[in-house]
Amino acid sequence: MRCEVLAIGTELLLGQVVDTNSAWIGEQLALAGIDSHLQVKVGDNQTRIVTAIRQALARSDAVICCGGLGPTQDDITREAIAEVLGVPLELDDAVAARIEELFSSRGRTMALNNLRQAEVPSGATVIPQVRGTAPGLICRLGDRSIYAVPGVPGEMREMVERAVVPDLVARAGVTATILSRTVRTWGLAESTLAELLAGRMAALDAAGNGAPTIAFLASGIEGIKVRLTAKAPTREEAEARLVEEEASIRALLGAAVFGADAEGMEAAVGNLLLADGLTLAVAESVTGGLVGSRLSAVPGASNWFRGSIVAYASEVKRKLLGVGDGPVVSEAAAEEMAAGAAAVLGGDVGLALTGVAGPTEQDDQPIGTVWVGLAVDGSVDARLLRLGGDREQIRQIATISSLDLLRRRLLDGPSVS
Amino acid sequence: MRCEVLAIGTELLLGQVVDTNSAWIGEQLALAGIDSHLQVKVGDNQTRIVTAIRQALARSDAVICCGGLGPTQDDITREAIAEVLGVPLELDDAVAARIEELFSSRGRTMALNNLRQAEVPSGATVIPQVRGTAPGLICRLGDRSIYAVPGVPGEMREMVERAVVPDLVARAGVTATILSRTVRTWGLAESTLAELLAGRMAALDAAGNGAPTIAFLASGIEGIKVRLTAKAPTREEAEARLVEEEASIRALLGAAVFGADAEGMEAAVGNLLLADGLTLAVAESVTGGLVGSRLSAVPGASNWFRGSIVAYASEVKRKLLGVGDGPVVSEAAAEEMAAGAAAVLGGDVGLALTGVAGPTEQDDQPIGTVWVGLAVDGSVDARLLRLGGDREQIRQIATISSLDLLRRRLLDGPSVS
Repeated sequence: MRCEVLAIGTELLLGQVVDTNSAWIGEQLALAGIDSHLQVKVGDNQTRIVTAIRQALARSDAVICCGGLGPTQDDITREAIAEVLGVPLELDDAVAARIEELFSSRGRTMALNNLRQAEVPSGATVIPQVRGTAPGLICRLGDRSIYAVPGVPGEMREMVERAVVPDLVARAGVTATILSRTVRTWGLAESTLAELLAGRMAALDAAGNGAPTIAFLASGIEGIKVRLTAKAPTREEAEARLVEEEASIRALLGAAVFGADAEGMEAAVGNLLLADGLTLAVAESVTGGLVGSRLSAVPGASNWFRGSIVAYASEVKRKLLGVGDGPVVSEAAAEEMAAGAAAVLGGDVGLALTGVAGPTEQDDQPIGTVWVGLAVDGSVDARLLRLGGDREQIRQIATISSLDLLRRRLLDGPSVS
Repeated sequence: MRCEVLAIGTELLLGQVVDTNSAWIGEQLALAGIDSHLQVKVGDNQTRIVTAIRQALARSDAVICCGGLGPTQDDITREAIAEVLGVPLELDDAVAARIEELFSSRGRTMALNNLRQAEVPSGATVIPQVRGTAPGLICRLGDRSIYAVPGVPGEMREMVERAVVPDLVARAGVTATILSRTVRTWGLAESTLAELLAGRMAALDAAGNGAPTIAFLASGIEGIKVRLTAKAPTREEAEARLVEEEASIRALLGAAVFGADAEGMEAAVGNLLLADGLTLAVAESVTGGLVGSRLSAVPGASNWFRGSIVAYASEVKRKLLGVGDGPVVSEAAAEEMAAGAAAVLGGDVGLALTGVAGPTEQDDQPIGTVWVGLAVDGSVDARLLRLGGDREQIRQIATISSLDLLRRRLLDGPSVS
């Protein structure tokens, strides 16, 4: 079973939008064991879209068309697919009713062109929308399949996972299951990770067919991911191999591992706080709310997250958090902010950040200077970070670095002073 | 003159790397007035690369091959191009000498496979490297051109700017310049925008060749972008047409327009505050710091942003912000939080958010309920939002919606009470 990806939109060709959808779909196809030899981007031109779909189906068993399903005149994926199939477009009453209901439930009047999204090629199966308005499509042409999904990433992903990949897998009669797991690390260089895992990777290579494979994926501020992939006749066997391999990797990498798959650094911190029955209070300056926003993104964060004082103005640091007369980018200020946050917000643990993200220096400190204060179990201290990159990179790396420092401090246990 | 882009690398198809090169090249081609109708990604397979190049040359005058020029066994772009041209590969002594010199000047021994990069199809013109080791290529096949550039973004960009685009422009005899501008909107559906601009778009269509074109781009929580593209004999003329068209669009869309190109909602708010000489204080619960983090992302935010109280725990809302005994997701609480933030943080203007992002209801309010409080010029009021989507979508939409409400309130001027 081979499946191509066709990303549709003139804005993709003009470079106004980077096509991240095709990469994501390519990954899902690979994980499902479906080959994908070609991915194509085409503009909003019906003749060219029709040609691209026909060429894809001449080479492969299926094509996933991504984008061009919206309500405006340049959304012509539906028309192009109908032309390829040689069928007319027909209004799907159920889809039309859902779109009308969506507008009225939000108290908005619906422009009539929204109903274009309810037109489907005759004989097509609709993939119902659960987030937006434009439904997806599954169409057959002989033994070939044409899928259409919206270009909005959230809507696309949901439909590909729910409807497209399962349909492809069912038609392919895929018997081997390929599962993948990502072990997430922070604080080690890729070359160091490779050295630590070299022995294990050699052993897996030697074990040969059926043994999991290991690959690295540098993910910027999300750290470096170690991806484990296992192939087995059944889902249970593949899962068992992954579980076993993950345990080996975690043992080799130790505290550098903070989570797996979608588990972010903030969830790791939350789990440790919850296990210890502690609550967290934050004071942040240079990050301006990034630390609080990441922590509060975790469902159930209200069980351990008290809040954050975003003390952007120096006066706020002094009046609200009790920072003394010295410079506000300093070890002392970070410690006072951590202790102040815990006191003002009523948290057991205090975390604070103060630093310089640029574009100009502050308090004679160079851009990239960040002090992280920790108030845990009655002891307060601060650590200095020297970060590179632009303003936003410094803020983002400061955020995850501070959460990692807190995570490692909590791992050390409450008795360290 | 038409030119396609062929990105080469299995890692692109597997989604391990997102292909940003094609988007960047597409932008350069558009700016140089060269049409690009198709962009293709193909894996490291010589047969498929050869087929992709042949198909590209059947449709277009030129193809830019990006990637696969390195020293390893899976770098086979050179071989594929030689096959398309029907010529052998020959060692280019000058390139070989440069690669050897590069290694010795860095005190490193050169693995022999690095000399593969000095093999070029017979008759090809070499684009010398100035950063790395692999040179680029310019090859002719009749009146068609095949360009090859490395996949490393910095090396690719330098060669495309220095050698590829100038060669294309010279061969095309291009005289027109294409420029693009994005007008950014919030608060109107794409279909409503299309209706408001239908007359203008029809007039531009009727004006025909040389008139700017208008397209829509839904960008999720960043609103809907209206893209204007103008083509003219000179850069100055294209720029003048864009400026004129942007003014027309802004007049038609009114306050729905918050910025242009990279200018985000937070910068729009900052500019209004700065113009009025006002400072802003925020209190946020459901967004957990997102509002503060967006505002503080603007360089120079310290001139107008005081800070934010992330009052995640209800107790913090009551003790620190003076929220009364009633429910914390309510009109009264939002108003008290806005006034409280302004008072505690010493801001002229207060903005507050309290709501329910899920996964569970709170205070008997359904998920997606968000109250936005505004304290401006002595008057305090609150607006109710009912948002759809998952937890993170609700938080993100609440953030930009609240900034938009503040922006519109500031646009109304300080005298409204």
